[in-house]
Amino acid sequence: MEVIVPFSTDRPKSRLSDVLSPEERREFARTMLDDVLDAVDAAGGDPRILATDAVDVDSPVTVDDRPLTEAVNAALDARLGADSERDGSPDPVAVVMADLALVTPAAVDRLFAAGRDADVAMAPGRGGGTNAFVASHPEFRVDYHGASYLDHREIAAEVGADFAAVDSHRLGTDVDEPADLAEVLIHGEGRAAAWLREAGFALDADEGRVAVARE
Amino acid sequence: MEVIVPFSTDRPKSRLSDVLSPEERREFARTMLDDVLDAVDAAGGDPRILATDAVDVDSPVTVDDRPLTEAVNAALDARLGADSERDGSPDPVAVVMADLALVTPAAVDRLFAAGRDADVAMAPGRGGGTNAFVASHPEFRVDYHGASYLDHREIAAEVGADFAAVDSHRLGTDVDEPADLAEVLIHGEGRAAAWLREAGFALDADEGRVAVARE
Repeated sequence: MEVIVPFSTDRPKSRLSDVLSPEERREFARTMLDDVLDAVDAAGGDPRILATDAVDVDSPVTVDDRPLTEAVNAALDARLGADSERDGSPDPVAVVMADLALVTPAAVDRLFAAGRDADVAMAPGRGGGTNAFVASHPEFRVDYHGASYLDHREIAAEVGADFAAVDSHRLGTDVDEPADLAEVLIHGEGRAAAWLREAGFALDADEGRVAVARE
Repeated sequence: MEVIVPFSTDRPKSRLSDVLSPEERREFARTMLDDVLDAVDAAGGDPRILATDAVDVDSPVTVDDRPLTEAVNAALDARLGADSERDGSPDPVAVVMADLALVTPAAVDRLFAAGRDADVAMAPGRGGGTNAFVASHPEFRVDYHGASYLDHREIAAEVGADFAAVDSHRLGTDVDEPADLAEVLIHGEGRAAAWLREAGFALDADEGRVAVARE
């Protein structure tokens, strides 16, 4: 399955600016991207990076500097409908965010499996975002503003697409805020977790929920 | 499967005190308990509440006013080993927290299925907690302090129990802090979500992640 991985090269992970410098945020964002690409590969997916600017990476890269919603919808147009000249039902295409540092091949497998059974299968992110989805309905399009998960359910309903939710903590954890770093240290198995440890982050169990502290 | 549901009647949900009064916190905690009991029932489980004091509810209640770890371990002693007089492998027993307001029968089913295949199957909570598990290993015991999920993995390894993680956003979302209320409004399908709406809570999509606002 083709898997589009949107990646912003411009000031990535700004909500981590209290704990990481701009250069560190760039490095860390890149380790997360690499972890996502590895997991997609291992699950048999075919990743394509949809980046705001050039990225030096082994997978194919499409550069599109428009905002996320427009860039993803252009990709969906090309694959699912409108610009597509396919007859019959289009092949499913996945969109998986580049900051899912907890992702594993098994989690991607569950997303793919759900996407083969439903017109739209989606893993919500914490706070109502849309962290990953598979769509095979020609008219499904995205709108990433606000509580996008609820909007996407509504869009699916409007175009008559079956919708399945993928209930996954790993897919549901996008890494945006300092508290998310604890999830990476607890559950991450890849480069992002190693990078954080190397940068001096460790779990701090003094609070109600485990947080992170930096040496 | 027997499902132990620990429930504290004493100052429940104190980390919600900025947004809910003590009486409201008691009411809201009770709606979450009822949602959990419903989901366990619907998944074919046999719930038993392990409460710090009497609770007026249809399911059987055991009162044990010791701290959570001691009370749960006493229940595990009685079912899995030590105090148990069973021969052979004990029947699996589940422990599911009472504040999992997003839980559905399907999520409980996945927990049960994982618990039939492994000696210990566990759904981590956000921040490294242990939100739900099934154990059938006679020597597995709990320690809920700190990053209990990692400690429980270690305890399972020490007693030679196979461990399986259950990757679920629904089981992973315990409702402790104001930000968690957004998850209830986005994904909750039961009494807790209805109670919050009735109390004037609504989603507020102004921030990076969707938060809640109260009228």
